[in-house]
Formats: sequence, C-alpha cells, structure tokens
Amino acid sequence: MGDPAGIGPEIIAKAWSARAPHMLPAFFAVGDPRAVTQVWDGPVVPISDPHEATGAFDQGLPVIAAADAGEVVPGAPDIDGARCALQSLELAAGLARSGAASAVVTGPVSKKQLYDIGFTYPGQTEFVAERCGVAHENAVMMLAGPTLRVVPITTHIPLQTVASTISIELIVAKARATARGLQRNFGILKPRLAFAGFNPHAGEGGAIGSEEIDFLMPAIEQLQAEGIDAVGPFAADTMFHPRARALYDVALCLYHDQALIPIKTLHFDEGVNMTLGLPIVRTSPDHGTAFGIAGRNEAEPGAMIAAIRMAAQAAAVRRSSACQ
Amino acid sequence: MGDPAGIGPEIIAKAWSARAPHMLPAFFAVGDPRAVTQVWDGPVVPISDPHEATGAFDQGLPVIAAADAGEVVPGAPDIDGARCALQSLELAAGLARSGAASAVVTGPVSKKQLYDIGFTYPGQTEFVAERCGVAHENAVMMLAGPTLRVVPITTHIPLQTVASTISIELIVAKARATARGLQRNFGILKPRLAFAGFNPHAGEGGAIGSEEIDFLMPAIEQLQAEGIDAVGPFAADTMFHPRARALYDVALCLYHDQALIPIKTLHFDEGVNMTLGLPIVRTSPDHGTAFGIAGRNEAEPGAMIAAIRMAAQAAAVRRSSACQ
Repeated sequence: MGDPAGIGPEIIAKAWSARAPHMLPAFFAVGDPRAVTQVWDGPVVPISDPHEATGAFDQGLPVIAAADAGEVVPGAPDIDGARCALQSLELAAGLARSGAASAVVTGPVSKKQLYDIGFTYPGQTEFVAERCGVAHENAVMMLAGPTLRVVPITTHIPLQTVASTISIELIVAKARATARGLQRNFGILKPRLAFAGFNPHAGEGGAIGSEEIDFLMPAIEQLQAEGIDAVGPFAADTMFHPRARALYDVALCLYHDQALIPIKTLHFDEGVNMTLGLPIVRTSPDHGTAFGIAGRNEAEPGAMIAAIRMAAQAAAVRRSSACQ
Repeated sequence: MGDPAGIGPEIIAKAWSARAPHMLPAFFAVGDPRAVTQVWDGPVVPISDPHEATGAFDQGLPVIAAADAGEVVPGAPDIDGARCALQSLELAAGLARSGAASAVVTGPVSKKQLYDIGFTYPGQTEFVAERCGVAHENAVMMLAGPTLRVVPITTHIPLQTVASTISIELIVAKARATARGLQRNFGILKPRLAFAGFNPHAGEGGAIGSEEIDFLMPAIEQLQAEGIDAVGPFAADTMFHPRARALYDVALCLYHDQALIPIKTLHFDEGVNMTLGLPIVRTSPDHGTAFGIAGRNEAEPGAMIAAIRMAAQAAAVRRSSACQ
C-alpha cells in the first residue's frame, strides 16, 4: 500500500474496481485495511494467506493486515504510517521471494518519514534488492509506458557530477542487467538496446564533448562483443519520436532527465517503474504519494493499473520460460 | 532555399502545392530555380521583385533567381551550392530587413560546405542576427510545435560545460528576449515563462545540486521584479506532459537536450525554429538538409509548411500591433 496517508490505498482500491475492463488478475493489498476503508466505500475482504486472494477477489479487495498504521489522516504522513509502510513492504517482498505471490507492486512512500524511523536505503528499490540478495548496483530502474521503455544509468545525483560518475564498467553492468531483464520479464529473446549520447548531437564525433568516445562507444563495443544488440550513441533529441522508438526495445540514458523527460512527456499518467535484475518481479506506479489530493477521491489509478498489469505479464513470462 | 542539393527546394515546392489546404499566404523562393525544376514537375514562375509574388502565386511557385548553383546533384553538396545558399540567404534577409518581404523562412544548409567557403558563423541564425544589427547573444532560438514552445539557453556546447557557461545575466537576457519575442510575434501580452531545473527534481532544495539556487532562482526573482511572468524552477521531467504544458507559454531550459527532447518527441515532423530578438520575423523548419533522401520525392514538407505559416502569423501580429 505504500504510505497509508498517501494515495496508495485509494488507487489500489480503484484498480480493484477497474479489474474487469482492464482484465487484471487476482491481487491483494498488504497494509492496514483501515487505510483503505476510510477513503473507499467498496468491499474489503480480510485474508491471512495469499492463497485466499484468488477466491476472495470477486467479492472485494483482498487485504492482508500487515501492521497497524494507528490513526491515519489522509495527506498527513506520520511515523506510525511509515512503520506500517515498511512492514508492508517487508511482508510483500517476502511473499514474492517465497513464491507465495507472483510479483510485488509497491505503492508510493514518503522518504522523509521513512528516514525518521531509521530507513537507510535511497528508496524501496534498494530495500527490495537487498532483501533479494542483490547488490543495489545490479538492480536497474526501468521506466515503461505503452510505447517507450527507458533506463537512467544514473539517477538522483547533480547533473554536473554525472560525467565523473559514469564508467565503461557501470554502463556495461547496467546494460547487461537491462538486456537480461527484458528477456526474463518481457520474453524478448534479443532485446535491442539504444544508447543516448551524453552531449548535444551525441558529441558530433568529439566536437561537442568526449563522453561518447571515452565511455559510450567502448561500452557499446564490449556489449556487442558479448552478443548483446546494443547500438548508438544517438543524438538524444531525435531518439524519442514515434518512428525512432520503433527501432529499439529500451533506451539507455546516462542521466535522470534525459530518460525521464521523454517517458513522462509521453506517458505521464500510465508510467510504470520496473526493477530489473531481481529474482522477483517488482513494479511500481511512476508517481509519488500525492499527499495534496489524498483522501479526496481525486487520485487517478491509471499508473497503478498499468503497474499491476505489467507485473502480471512479467510473472506469466517467467512462468512460461520456467516450464519450457 | 538553403542548400540546393538538400531537400530545401523540394519542400518549398511541396509547400506551394499544399498552399490551399494549409491556407498559406503568398510566398516566394530565393535561390537557383533549376534546383526546384530538377526535383519537381510543378510550375515555377520567375520573378524579379517580391511585389510580383502575390500575383504570380496562383500560377506557380514564384522564384527570385539569387545565384547560379552550377550543376546541382541532389544529395551531393558542393562549393557552388554553398555559395548559392549564402547569397540566397543574404538576399532574403535583406528583403525582409527592407520591408519588401514580411518574413524570412530559411531552408536547411550544410555547415561543412559553408565553412569551406569562409562562412564563420555558427549557423544561419547568427548570420541573420548580424545582418539585422543584433548581437548574437541577444538572438534567441525558440523551437515551437502545436502544443509546446521551448528555448534552450545554451545550445551546442558539451553538457559538462553548461554549468560554467550559464550565469544570472545570461538567463535574464535570454528570458527578456523570449518574453519580448512572444509579445511581438505571437501577440501574447504577458507571456508565461516556465524555467526547467538543471538537476533531477530541480535540485530538491539543494540536495541534488546547487545551480537552481545559484543561478535560476535569482534570475527568476529578477525577471519577476521587472514584471515578467517567470516561474520555476520546476522538475524538468514533469513539465512537458499535456496538463503541465497548458500552464505556460514557453519553457526555458539551460541545455540543448532538455529543450529539444520534449519538442522533438512531441512534434518531430512539424517543429519550427523561430529566432526571437530580431527586428525581422525569421523561422526555419527544424530539420536538416536530409541529403540521404534529396531528389527522391520522399521529403515531408510538414515542418516547412508550419514554418511558413508561423512566419506569416508573426508578421500579421507585428503589422496589427504597428497599426494600433
């Protein structure tokens, strides 16, 4: 559910209401059931085991009560809510890790409150990665919408420090995990990876910056030598129009805005954050807690619905591969 | 016409053919008429004075023969073609400067060939600015499509040098010229200028970089004090979806890709480059010479049509303001 005072509970409930038109598979919420009931009039079915979810799903939104959030005031996050969010995340990740659940979809959390209770990870992604025994450098954040997938190789660091943070090794590691993740989660046998240049016009052969020559071209050559379909670097501004997007399965970008501007420009209300490189399937709606509209029945569930559907599809691909 | 061996002549001719459905006003080409006739079967009407264009426009594409391009091989630029492109640009800018033409729309040129004949400007924009007596720092490149206008405050420099290139003064100067340009060319009385942050999430109050605090916020405060409707800095990734775009008239970005990714993602085939800060109206289709498809009748005239239309509208706004 993420933070109980955010829009997480509401968009999960709305996703349940929209299960038929969106053909969503059975899912269940993990958190404090009151966080749902106080913002939603629909039916909630308490369950204690994931196996009950399928049977209960037609009657109402199945919820496993993972923790007590105390008194929840929508829009007003507090310590108890943060503890509840963390315990819910821990339980959900554990259920996916054990195989009792097919995937984890994480609701939005409030990092400030999490830090107040001693949470030391940059975000839920790194926490889930550690619970899965994966070094967080090997977990890759991919953002996906109906017509575009992007991977930012660096994320929340000053733009001025990106050039000194990247390395051939980092690019190769992220690209490998990306290629493997597209195989495992989407069934794409030979994913096409397109790299965006760092500088305007991808540096114009060194005339406008050297990061393409110093880092991107050697990394791409190494990936190609490993049999990965990596191409580029391309001028970033001409990579994201419809005809260009058709030529690759994922765009790899060296910095945050280069990846997030195109995906949010195109798919703001339906963007999904998927973590690649994990033994489990994990997705998340690509938005925050939206405390400003929490509890007002104004939250749009589109991204949550897309995150649930993408998680289900990825789980199905993994099952079918495992059976082959 | 731009480079006679590029797609310039073809898209001008195709724009003439599409004049009725797009309600284009009378226009004329400046260049070597043979560059048009050898790639297009339609009617060409040689004229020697802009005043003849209106009368000739129904019969065919009016062309002022500005220079001899020699033998033109579509897709194969040469020195003679570059000379012809430069002489055509010089004449067209002069006609607009004198008032004989309402605006200049420049076709795509090949910088390499222009440099070979001694052209020393970064591009046509700076050449036109100088011919208009405007310092090129005060000329602003704005890219515009049907739902978005963007101004890159820096353009073709290495990304790593942007932070050391920008200053409060530069940002303020570009923003002033942008606001004034939107008033003069679009008739927007009080243009809304939205600034994109430099760092992810606009720096999160200094946690992810300080350029917002050091440069953007002081510049925005100064602009506001001058009565300009400047807001931001905003997280760049959430500025370009449809609801966000409705809140401003132009987005100002500190570096090339931050501005050009969203405009080309949304409006790749209809993007117009307009120079603000000039005494004349100047637009250009936002694409290159496309030598690879020149002479094959494959070039899409959409951006040229949009550039002609935007130039005509800006000229009309200027005329109506001058009459008030």
